[in-house]
Amino acid sequence: MTEQPSSTANQMWGGRFAAGPDAIMEAINASIGFDQRLYAQDIRGSRAHAAMLAAQGIISTSDAEAIGEGLLTVLSEIEKGDFPFSTALEDIHMNVESRLKELIGEPAGRLHTARSRNDQVATDFRLWVRGQCDAAIEGLGALIRAALSQAERGADWVMPGFTHLQTAQPVTWGHHMMAYVEMFGRDLSRFEDARRRMNESPLGAAALAGTSFPIDREATARALGFDRPMANSLDAVSDRDFALEFLSASAICAVHLSRLAEELVIWSSAQFRFVTLSDRFSTGSSIMPQKKNPDAAELIRAKIGRILGAAVALFVVMKGLPLAYSKDMQEDKEQVFDAADNLMLALAAMTGMLSDLTANRERLEAAAGAGFSTATDLADWLVREAGLPFRDAHHVTGALVAMAEKQGIDLPDLSLEQMQSVHPAITADIYGVLGVHNSVASRTSYGGTAPAQVRAQIARWKQKLGEIA
Amino acid sequence: MTEQPSSTANQMWGGRFAAGPDAIMEAINASIGFDQRLYAQDIRGSRAHAAMLAAQGIISTSDAEAIGEGLLTVLSEIEKGDFPFSTALEDIHMNVESRLKELIGEPAGRLHTARSRNDQVATDFRLWVRGQCDAAIEGLGALIRAALSQAERGADWVMPGFTHLQTAQPVTWGHHMMAYVEMFGRDLSRFEDARRRMNESPLGAAALAGTSFPIDREATARALGFDRPMANSLDAVSDRDFALEFLSASAICAVHLSRLAEELVIWSSAQFRFVTLSDRFSTGSSIMPQKKNPDAAELIRAKIGRILGAAVALFVVMKGLPLAYSKDMQEDKEQVFDAADNLMLALAAMTGMLSDLTANRERLEAAAGAGFSTATDLADWLVREAGLPFRDAHHVTGALVAMAEKQGIDLPDLSLEQMQSVHPAITADIYGVLGVHNSVASRTSYGGTAPAQVRAQIARWKQKLGEIA
Amino acid sequence: MTEQPSSTANQMWGGRFAAGPDAIMEAINASIGFDQRLYAQDIRGSRAHAAMLAAQGIISTSDAEAIGEGLLTVLSEIEKGDFPFSTALEDIHMNVESRLKELIGEPAGRLHTARSRNDQVATDFRLWVRGQCDAAIEGLGALIRAALSQAERGADWVMPGFTHLQTAQPVTWGHHMMAYVEMFGRDLSRFEDARRRMNESPLGAAALAGTSFPIDREATARALGFDRPMANSLDAVSDRDFALEFLSASAICAVHLSRLAEELVIWSSAQFRFVTLSDRFSTGSSIMPQKKNPDAAELIRAKIGRILGAAVALFVVMKGLPLAYSKDMQEDKEQVFDAADNLMLALAAMTGMLSDLTANRERLEAAAGAGFSTATDLADWLVREAGLPFRDAHHVTGALVAMAEKQGIDLPDLSLEQMQSVHPAITADIYGVLGVHNSVASRTSYGGTAPAQVRAQIARWKQKLGEIA
Amino acid sequence: MTEQPSSTANQMWGGRFAAGPDAIMEAINASIGFDQRLYAQDIRGSRAHAAMLAAQGIISTSDAEAIGEGLLTVLSEIEKGDFPFSTALEDIHMNVESRLKELIGEPAGRLHTARSRNDQVATDFRLWVRGQCDAAIEGLGALIRAALSQAERGADWVMPGFTHLQTAQPVTWGHHMMAYVEMFGRDLSRFEDARRRMNESPLGAAALAGTSFPIDREATARALGFDRPMANSLDAVSDRDFALEFLSASAICAVHLSRLAEELVIWSSAQFRFVTLSDRFSTGSSIMPQKKNPDAAELIRAKIGRILGAAVALFVVMKGLPLAYSKDMQEDKEQVFDAADNLMLALAAMTGMLSDLTANRERLEAAAGAGFSTATDLADWLVREAGLPFRDAHHVTGALVAMAEKQGIDLPDLSLEQMQSVHPAITADIYGVLGVHNSVASRTSYGGTAPAQVRAQIARWKQKLGEIA
Repeated sequence: MTEQPSSTANQMWGGRFAAGPDAIMEAINASIGFDQRLYAQDIRGSRAHAAMLAAQGIISTSDAEAIGEGLLTVLSEIEKGDFPFSTALEDIHMNVESRLKELIGEPAGRLHTARSRNDQVATDFRLWVRGQCDAAIEGLGALIRAALSQAERGADWVMPGFTHLQTAQPVTWGHHMMAYVEMFGRDLSRFEDARRRMNESPLGAAALAGTSFPIDREATARALGFDRPMANSLDAVSDRDFALEFLSASAICAVHLSRLAEELVIWSSAQFRFVTLSDRFSTGSSIMPQKKNPDAAELIRAKIGRILGAAVALFVVMKGLPLAYSKDMQEDKEQVFDAADNLMLALAAMTGMLSDLTANRERLEAAAGAGFSTATDLADWLVREAGLPFRDAHHVTGALVAMAEKQGIDLPDLSLEQMQSVHPAITADIYGVLGVHNSVASRTSYGGTAPAQVRAQIARWKQKLGEIA
Repeated sequence: MTEQPSSTANQMWGGRFAAGPDAIMEAINASIGFDQRLYAQDIRGSRAHAAMLAAQGIISTSDAEAIGEGLLTVLSEIEKGDFPFSTALEDIHMNVESRLKELIGEPAGRLHTARSRNDQVATDFRLWVRGQCDAAIEGLGALIRAALSQAERGADWVMPGFTHLQTAQPVTWGHHMMAYVEMFGRDLSRFEDARRRMNESPLGAAALAGTSFPIDREATARALGFDRPMANSLDAVSDRDFALEFLSASAICAVHLSRLAEELVIWSSAQFRFVTLSDRFSTGSSIMPQKKNPDAAELIRAKIGRILGAAVALFVVMKGLPLAYSKDMQEDKEQVFDAADNLMLALAAMTGMLSDLTANRERLEAAAGAGFSTATDLADWLVREAGLPFRDAHHVTGALVAMAEKQGIDLPDLSLEQMQSVHPAITADIYGVLGVHNSVASRTSYGGTAPAQVRAQIARWKQKLGEIA
Repeated sequence: MTEQPSSTANQMWGGRFAAGPDAIMEAINASIGFDQRLYAQDIRGSRAHAAMLAAQGIISTSDAEAIGEGLLTVLSEIEKGDFPFSTALEDIHMNVESRLKELIGEPAGRLHTARSRNDQVATDFRLWVRGQCDAAIEGLGALIRAALSQAERGADWVMPGFTHLQTAQPVTWGHHMMAYVEMFGRDLSRFEDARRRMNESPLGAAALAGTSFPIDREATARALGFDRPMANSLDAVSDRDFALEFLSASAICAVHLSRLAEELVIWSSAQFRFVTLSDRFSTGSSIMPQKKNPDAAELIRAKIGRILGAAVALFVVMKGLPLAYSKDMQEDKEQVFDAADNLMLALAAMTGMLSDLTANRERLEAAAGAGFSTATDLADWLVREAGLPFRDAHHVTGALVAMAEKQGIDLPDLSLEQMQSVHPAITADIYGVLGVHNSVASRTSYGGTAPAQVRAQIARWKQKLGEIA
Repeated sequence: MTEQPSSTANQMWGGRFAAGPDAIMEAINASIGFDQRLYAQDIRGSRAHAAMLAAQGIISTSDAEAIGEGLLTVLSEIEKGDFPFSTALEDIHMNVESRLKELIGEPAGRLHTARSRNDQVATDFRLWVRGQCDAAIEGLGALIRAALSQAERGADWVMPGFTHLQTAQPVTWGHHMMAYVEMFGRDLSRFEDARRRMNESPLGAAALAGTSFPIDREATARALGFDRPMANSLDAVSDRDFALEFLSASAICAVHLSRLAEELVIWSSAQFRFVTLSDRFSTGSSIMPQKKNPDAAELIRAKIGRILGAAVALFVVMKGLPLAYSKDMQEDKEQVFDAADNLMLALAAMTGMLSDLTANRERLEAAAGAGFSTATDLADWLVREAGLPFRDAHHVTGALVAMAEKQGIDLPDLSLEQMQSVHPAITADIYGVLGVHNSVASRTSYGGTAPAQVRAQIARWKQKLGEIA
């Protein structure tokens, strides 16, 4: 992907390819440039495998100990940055194995007993993706907390509820924030489901057919935190649906993030000014003091692009591949790495931005009442309290709105006399539903925007998160 | 967008658009051309809503009864094909409502109390997608049964296990079939998870803010088979993640189908002849008797294209939409309709094709043994039984293969004497792992290709399906 | 796949599939449901082929005449809506052929001499896509004219130029409109290139290998308006890159449309009120007079979803298909039909909406000046006219903006004395670049926002369109 | 996003994010990690800009010289690997500018006169993508030459022409290779069109509105090899359609590559053995001498995944972005870098693999004749030479094939007597079209598979390439 900048791409390829076919083959074939990210998973899997081999009497205890210790040394070398990765050794598995042989000699060769590159890479990658599910679950938990905190602050702050980006009805800031809590909550549960489904161990599937060594797949599954071994060795080395599911869940989450990000960009405009972003998550202009570019929101909005792109990439790679392993599948990792990195980054940035931002309460309230946004409340009152048929209620409402508009005032500013001149059944009670605060307070149906409802939902979520955490 | 073929598209658009902007707006705006498929869900939702309104005393019982009866009449008209859908009435909801008014008069107007088009369409669509989850679960169940049946028939038939489409090790036909059972089983569980997550009722969210009428959202949720009402009214009318999840699960399933379809195409070629498709699922040539085109397999292979395309379409539509409803979301239905139709069709066609096909046992077995495919077994024996280090075992195996190749024979055809000339530790026991039948029989690790293992997995699945069914 | 709404999909499939495998195979295999749209192209291609066969002496002149006349009859039957399409006859080609045989008897059988279904369908589809290139070119021409017309009206109306949706510098309405003229102009040229590249005739490639009949491919190419016959018969029947290129060009165009549509949605909000859409392209609320939902703009914004989805679908279908024809390729048409229909509709709707809309000149101008949007002009003047280094110019500008902000006035409202108190090199000339009108007038670099530049570009485009038209 | 492998991603993000919001913002905002690849373009653009500023008298000649020299020093530092890239300086432009200031002091500040980051990055990226068009054109030229060379070698080698992967008619190896030459030729012309369309200079568009400095955009355009300056400054900084077009052309080319790659994988299987790949482009097994994994072909087949994924990513990013620059657009580069790198690599690998591979002539010929693949030729002869109606010809052919099949012989092995027993009009001339060599030789229609036709097309291409080269 991103190489050293020591020359332009053309020159670079030209240079490398000048060396002829061998350089081309190495360039297209080697994966060490990216799969070195699996080093921790690879070493963990190998240690579990070696311990099991010894427990089953397939290798000696002393060999298993030498292997286990040697692998810890390799791990420590890599984490210290002392490990010389070699492209000639193609991938992370060969790099680790080769170093192990240098460190412990002959016993290193026994590590590969009853195992193949195919089940090894499937295990490593599955462990990595499982870790990313955990990271997404954690990141979403933090984001939900940030949204809950905003919701709590403004549970009764009124703002316009939009449809088509046109003011439709007043809602509360808390209600709007809680809509995202629900979305992110479903995202979180999707990662939980994906994690549960993928949490089976491919280790021991060997090349594709299983093995004749008396291995204990339950033991290695347990040691690696898997719920059980996968039940078909061909399937274990051939499928990448767990990665596709992770990418799909990530893309759905990224759509939700893009929607909130879009709102933040629009709300930050001079025309809206609904929110003020913190300086940390925006950039300014030295000579235009009011310009505050919502860079972080824009970048989060964009992330659905690369995450969906990564999903499409892997779907296309997997299309029509015969069983079992085909080299095409080497293209699985970079897509998932990039999507996961960017999802976690977007979650963290959104959490930070949402925690930091200030909702401009007065500005929101002023906008909420514009455009006769409580006309629906008036019509509903006429149906509910005065018993008018729907059609008549709409007619009366239209006449009252026209009257108010003509006078340049809002609906609650009409006198009872004026109202009754349009329809005699109107009583003073009607003022109880006019005005944005009355409007939102009246919408007490389950899940509605009434502050009491919003606070009930906040309480439910806090309890739920308490259970999870 | 399949129109009448009465002219070319250009002429048609030209003709329609010649009528000017109104025709263009109607063409882009009206959804009745496709959302009429939601008629049953729409009527079911309205009936539940009316019954609840009466139970809560919001409308009279007689009105509710008139509405309920009237809606059944509409349902029956539509199912008989007697219903005149009108584009001027834009969508299915208006078409039903307008007909209801013709049938029962004034009470029809009360149906819309405490409800909005926004929660109505969200409810209808969610019911429809939930139904498709059920259809996918059923379709996958049938497909799994067909694969199990093939697996049972050939639990011990040997065939080549491929990597890179090169013979790697012998496996059994049953083992190969069971790999797909595992994949389709995970697909099935994905639709179950999606169904469970989406099974919440948007009804009662009204336009976006909830309502001030004393509705009972639990009651309508129950009546419609939902587990509970959605907890945030803005979220209820704004999100389509349930559709994205359905499309993602469908796309993953379609990838699995494309892989099996590709294998069937390759296996049907004159060069492979591993399987013979039934005449029902292939097409022939009147003058070339051996040509049997695997049309159904090719079409199934292609379906991942349109299903993934539909998913991408809806992801793109939803990207960056502010809350709550935007008209963009009207583009959600056609994509899901098309993906669901094609997934169900592909599942049915694959089930039929798999049930019908004949695996050519002799041809499979002959191919399984070619290319010294049991060389790995020999090497494993040398490690396991003769205690050779891996590197030495590989060296000895290479020498034996070279010897056999030189003589134009297979490994089991070498005499013990010849074998011992390469390494004295070899005993007659080695013949127990040579030959494809011995090879597969030896791979008894959990999930391995040994017929006993395959039969155990078949039994496990049969029991599991018994529980589900 | 939009079927009759006479039942839900599940019931429908259930019903159809109850009929067993044959019904499934017919459902997945038949294409007449969509490829009937190719009838005009099919008949045109057949007439050209028959005429050539006669000219080459391969069939008799009287047979050719009977065929030609018979095909015209079929054409007329289809266009009158009298043609009974049959699913049993699978596709448009068989439907036409079968009817021709009914009409003219035996000579109908000679039409298929030296031709195959493979080159026939490739020819029909290529003709259809070529027609859509023409339609896109025409639609883009109309849209460019609408944008030019808006640009001309407001060539010197100032508005905010945004970056990050934050006011950056004043521009003119005409300049903004002309940005889209440039984009749509490139879109148009992409369709021209695609048309030119695809305009080669597959006819005469036969099944895949060419034919031994002495056909004249130049003649049929000429008769069908192709520039030449395709040079390789395998390629002619196997590739669909012309469709992929059409879809790609459509998707790029749809991105441009989505950007303008997004601007119209934002500009229509109560907070912006930059434009007023006509009633024809928006929908209102009976009781909220100021609500004007930009439905058409939202639907246009969404179209990139389905068009990109269609492109992805066909890319995936074509991935990895061996030569020559595979049945997978039957999935090519519906994607292109749907994308083309929706692109043409979006172009027409945008043309109508843009023609109708009113830019709110005063509102645009007021917004243009807010936020010290001409601070850059001031800094540039200091560099250009007073010779200050950039850094100093920025420092001085910052101080002047701070001074103005403190007094609650705009930059042009500062007195010369006040300005000189910050830097003595400032002269009265500086007022010539302050204020939004001066600002835009000063940006006279080629392609800049100065009204003179904008008008020059309008003139260039009008001349160019005159040449094209 | 390829980071140091010194820890797992989770730990890493955890670690970085532990540093708080500033670390998150830097991580999401900085682009120097990838846009450093634009260094050569950035320096080239700046040098052209400085020279123009001096020529126009906007800066002094000595300043321009200092800038020009300083930039060459920076270039040389970067190419030597001595340049310390700083993440704090965010992007390549700031990194270069900051180093220039260290090197030459105050004049460095004048470089930014009449220019903005927005037109600078648009120029740099356009130059880079233009360079990749050139690289693709060159890479496709080499690949076409490799395919021509194969075609020339086997212009008359017969092989099966497949439809549905079933033998349909004999074709020649040369003909099959030339089908790809046509496809790659169209790909090449797509990159030429894209290059031509994008070859306009954004430089001088400044932030978005143009500038009041008397710049000469023609001069900088010329200096950078652009055909002309872009005609609208808003468009110049806002659009990325040139990148979308490059990605689309790349994806179409990658589809073609995937098809050839799929054929090579299938043809390399033990069952087909149509080709033998060189050791350089395949990998083997130490103990299974006949196993030759087509790794390079599989990886090339997979590349359409990531290239299409990159295209989807950028389409999604650009969807619905208002003008002018939004930070979302920073996501454009990595997608194009990755797609371009992988396209060039795939082209090089395919060129190498195709140059190296050996077509197994005997095996191809044997397969070509199987399955009565010349039955069509027989039927055509009966129509053409014996004047039979199509239907009768098919009937006779079917009878002859049945006769041959029954005797276990091929069509040319039937005696004339036997043939005449089926239809008396058959003469000895019929043997002239039977047999695969006669069959292919007879298909002399333009673009057909007859060796003479194939050689004519090879000659045409050689001449064409001579013109291009």
